[in-house]
Amino acid sequence: MKPLGSLILLAEAKTLVDANVRPIERVETVPLISLGHRILVRDVRSTIDVPPYNRSAMDGYAVKAQDTFQAGKFQPVELDCVGVVNAGDVPTKKVKKGTCIQISTGAMIPEGADAVVMVENTERSGKKVQIFRSIPPGANVSKQGEDIRKDSIVLRAGELLTPSKIGVLAALGFKEAEVYSMPRVSVIPTGKEVAEVGRELRKGQVFDINSHTLSSILLENGCVPVLHPIVEDTTEALTDAFGEESRSDMIVLSGGSSAGERDVLEGVVSKLGKVIFHGVQIKPGKPTIFGLIGSTPVFGMPG
Amino acid sequence: MKPLGSLILLAEAKTLVDANVRPIERVETVPLISLGHRILVRDVRSTIDVPPYNRSAMDGYAVKAQDTFQAGKFQPVELDCVGVVNAGDVPTKKVKKGTCIQISTGAMIPEGADAVVMVENTERSGKKVQIFRSIPPGANVSKQGEDIRKDSIVLRAGELLTPSKIGVLAALGFKEAEVYSMPRVSVIPTGKEVAEVGRELRKGQVFDINSHTLSSILLENGCVPVLHPIVEDTTEALTDAFGEESRSDMIVLSGGSSAGERDVLEGVVSKLGKVIFHGVQIKPGKPTIFGLIGSTPVFGMPG
Repeated sequence: MKPLGSLILLAEAKTLVDANVRPIERVETVPLISLGHRILVRDVRSTIDVPPYNRSAMDGYAVKAQDTFQAGKFQPVELDCVGVVNAGDVPTKKVKKGTCIQISTGAMIPEGADAVVMVENTERSGKKVQIFRSIPPGANVSKQGEDIRKDSIVLRAGELLTPSKIGVLAALGFKEAEVYSMPRVSVIPTGKEVAEVGRELRKGQVFDINSHTLSSILLENGCVPVLHPIVEDTTEALTDAFGEESRSDMIVLSGGSSAGERDVLEGVVSKLGKVIFHGVQIKPGKPTIFGLIGSTPVFGMPG
Repeated sequence: MKPLGSLILLAEAKTLVDANVRPIERVETVPLISLGHRILVRDVRSTIDVPPYNRSAMDGYAVKAQDTFQAGKFQPVELDCVGVVNAGDVPTKKVKKGTCIQISTGAMIPEGADAVVMVENTERSGKKVQIFRSIPPGANVSKQGEDIRKDSIVLRAGELLTPSKIGVLAALGFKEAEVYSMPRVSVIPTGKEVAEVGRELRKGQVFDINSHTLSSILLENGCVPVLHPIVEDTTEALTDAFGEESRSDMIVLSGGSSAGERDVLEGVVSKLGKVIFHGVQIKPGKPTIFGLIGSTPVFGMPG
């Protein structure tokens, strides 16, 4: 039983951690629905224009804007309606001077037309449509490529994916994307006094709180927590536990806050790898241990 | 093709939605690791004290505080060390006047002791321990029930579970909790112009963006999104789709923003249930439809 040696500053501890951990390199291809909170591996370049064609933003009539220039609330212009184009249709007719084509929101603008008059500003009787408003070219038309240009880079490698970025991937027709794997983090609860939840508590024991809290925090932060059974703070038990969790990207030990336990952990990490620091000037958290076993970072957190 | 009728205010729309939806009643028992963002069904009452015994907060020596009252930096008091108690042990010896017991963090305070001197304030030689600091009763002792009292209510029905609340459940030894089921929400993309991601885009089509964005948002907000295949805006197709998604707690349709499509959707919802409102004074989002089919809320969102 001995007190901790020299403590380092928190900033120094952070620098040491950053210098000794490497980003995850494993990647996987994940469907759209599961991409939330994942990190893109490569830039995403658009293979299409979005919208992919000039499309109507309104229900109304596709016209030559010039035909409406004389129209007003009390002096409608009358056009001949020569067809209908619904969303999903490919227009078969052209709009010529003096004519219009009925169009629905999302539909392709027919050849010859350069604007859409909203249905609210029209009155129809048979084939004749009265236009009560003058509109400029481009009115109520979403231009091809207005949202996303073909060949432009729309998402960058390293971006965190959100619902709206997942929407961008969908807009380009991607059903999946390549992202980094979630770090697998082993949580090893330690200490003879720690009892597993759901069991009977013996005298002198407390339930394992920390490893459950830690696992939930890891899960919320994009990791895959792997909860190891409780181990005693002995050299043998800890060595075995490290062996069993060696496939993980990081190992966190919770508990082992007493000086004797800290010494055992420090000894095991030293033997299997190296201790980078032990003891940080923060409270609580002073006896935090950080080390590497192979290239796997190991954190010993106080109980 | 006709314009929307009267629009209602957003506040009114929200009131109508609130008045027509019911909370989820299905419950399920979920292990600690999966409890994040879930809603508790019942109050949680503590069945134990936490800590369950008077425990040492430090490595050091359990003493009668009174024995240290004369101690100081240059005038140590000497006590006889009569034993050791480690975390997880049940103490077998008592601390009597003039004696102490070596104790580790987390260990039970032995009978007779009422305080712990930190190891940093002691010096040991054989059985003799020099105490260099005067401490009051209770020093470095976490009292039984100090964190949570037995029989107290620690979490309330309806609480959203976070990692720290999951830690509270673990502290009480619970390995699971009863929570409300996550709402199952069907997302039905509609429209002849909408193409499934991963396919070839035909002329006049756009990829299905909204249902993927919506599904990701639903997932982030604690729902289980169920993505329906794209359906055309016909009475038959929509009626079939509602039938297939009737097991869901909510149905959201994305697309169908053009007047013709809106009319079809309004007609189908009216026939199978009732339309509560159609048209809200917001932009974008004006042609939003809200209705009920049975007790299942149905939202028609513009494309």
